[in-house]
Amino acid sequence: MAVYTEVSDEDLAAFIGTYDVGRLLSCKGIAEGVENSNFLLQTDKASFILTLYEKRVNPDDLPYFLNLLEHLARKGLSCPTPVPSREGKLLGTLAGRPAALVTFLEGMWVRKPRVSHCAELGKAMAELHLDGRDYDGYRKNALDVTGWRPLFDQSAAGADSVSPRLGQEISRELDYLEANWPQELPSGVIHADLFPDNVFFLGDELSGLIDFYFACNDAFAYDIAICLNAWCFEPDLSFNVTKARALLKGYGAVRPLTDAEYDALPLLARGAALRFLLTRLYDWLSVPEGALVTPKDPMEYLKKLRFHRNVETAESYGLER
Amino acid sequence: MAVYTEVSDEDLAAFIGTYDVGRLLSCKGIAEGVENSNFLLQTDKASFILTLYEKRVNPDDLPYFLNLLEHLARKGLSCPTPVPSREGKLLGTLAGRPAALVTFLEGMWVRKPRVSHCAELGKAMAELHLDGRDYDGYRKNALDVTGWRPLFDQSAAGADSVSPRLGQEISRELDYLEANWPQELPSGVIHADLFPDNVFFLGDELSGLIDFYFACNDAFAYDIAICLNAWCFEPDLSFNVTKARALLKGYGAVRPLTDAEYDALPLLARGAALRFLLTRLYDWLSVPEGALVTPKDPMEYLKKLRFHRNVETAESYGLER
Repeated sequence: MAVYTEVSDEDLAAFIGTYDVGRLLSCKGIAEGVENSNFLLQTDKASFILTLYEKRVNPDDLPYFLNLLEHLARKGLSCPTPVPSREGKLLGTLAGRPAALVTFLEGMWVRKPRVSHCAELGKAMAELHLDGRDYDGYRKNALDVTGWRPLFDQSAAGADSVSPRLGQEISRELDYLEANWPQELPSGVIHADLFPDNVFFLGDELSGLIDFYFACNDAFAYDIAICLNAWCFEPDLSFNVTKARALLKGYGAVRPLTDAEYDALPLLARGAALRFLLTRLYDWLSVPEGALVTPKDPMEYLKKLRFHRNVETAESYGLER
Repeated sequence: MAVYTEVSDEDLAAFIGTYDVGRLLSCKGIAEGVENSNFLLQTDKASFILTLYEKRVNPDDLPYFLNLLEHLARKGLSCPTPVPSREGKLLGTLAGRPAALVTFLEGMWVRKPRVSHCAELGKAMAELHLDGRDYDGYRKNALDVTGWRPLFDQSAAGADSVSPRLGQEISRELDYLEANWPQELPSGVIHADLFPDNVFFLGDELSGLIDFYFACNDAFAYDIAICLNAWCFEPDLSFNVTKARALLKGYGAVRPLTDAEYDALPLLARGAALRFLLTRLYDWLSVPEGALVTPKDPMEYLKKLRFHRNVETAESYGLER
């Protein structure tokens, strides 16, 4: 739930006046997203999302994200498209924050994804990977295998307060992943945060992808691994192999996996699980005592990590090579 | 900021299916309102607000509120209009909560109201009072003069921790107001919470009133007194008599005040200030230590109360009788 910045009437009117989007009829803060402040704007022409970038986003990364969205939209991918100001700029300033206006995307995210949704997700993710191949921006994945140990160092002292011997388990996992992480997989632009709340559907049809503020250049299959974790476990943390198969088949129908990618999936899925375990652990330990906002449970991702550690080959994800 | 209840895909689809509002294209939680959960819905026909009534609203009051909105809309007042289901019901159930769908009102609330906004507010409030005269529902004002002492009793022990001798000052004020509260003023349906965030404007033009969930039957002039407090003080808590005059003139142009109402204004304004002082004091003392949500400062309303206590006649509000 997120509106962190209050915008004055004058500032909003002045900001909107720099765009050719019609007369402003409504502006409502949206209770979604945890990183930035988002407002749903309606004008006499269309609906838009106004995003104010808050402290967790590095302003230097914004041109990468906004130019990427413009690139992907031009390729035909359904995603929010940045609206240029009259001066042709994608990025402005509002209430002292970097701010951008993007087109409004119809659709809703699915609280309980079904098999058909996973298949659609796989297809759209593969299209995103293909469409991004000729994007000329580059952004290193700040949360790739080289970023996990520095992140863990900030939580190591408190880890065992969350679960006994958690620190040791993470430390060993880090050792293993750092020693065995594949370096030569096909790579390019990945979304890196394709959780269900970032994928919109109208009925069973995928209507678009949103929230590209973790997008970066990394192995395509790592994006798949993130989705295996985010989409294919049931609420009781059992792994739904039917959903995984649908996701991989959907992906492969658009962009077939190489043998190396296929073989690397269990390791990538361990890494993806560790990445979210680490950020959740950090958030968990950083929240002040008595706060009303409950951070997400890091243990969910420890359990997912353990599942993938017991996977011997990618066939366990339901798809034969 | 308010979305307290998570709604599942199936429940939302089933709920919307009971209305003739077209195909659902989008549903976003709105970070506004503190009592209920609100969602902005877009269908292929129009935009709507879906409200889930949370615990602070008494379900028995909902027919009063919803029938009132329907009544006022039929009279031509611009306010959210409840959309009846195919079965003709204004109130449904969603995610275990009472829920209603209302029309979407264009406009934005004004963070820094100017004199012209106060004039518009006065006119619209008077129209509301006139339009409500033949509404046949009745709801006692739960926060009228008889409700203040029981409310204060719940905060009395902690009052002095907020400000020295605050308890004594409130107690004396209660004694005075209970002894002198006028009983025979013209009355009918009042909004009882017409703060700037409940009044929408498009430019300088008032586009509608929202959030009728404190509406009740009480003295019309008490509604004016609430607005004198909510609209006519500057951020430094100085009283802007030009705004008050505009508000009263706007009101009087539509529904002239009686002499008794005019004379009672300073006392009513004291009472209105005390009412918000008491609810804010209660909220202030009820919030757990370390909570991220800061309740509104009760002292703001103590200062307003003191201002009105020093007002000798309603002429101080800028308008001669």
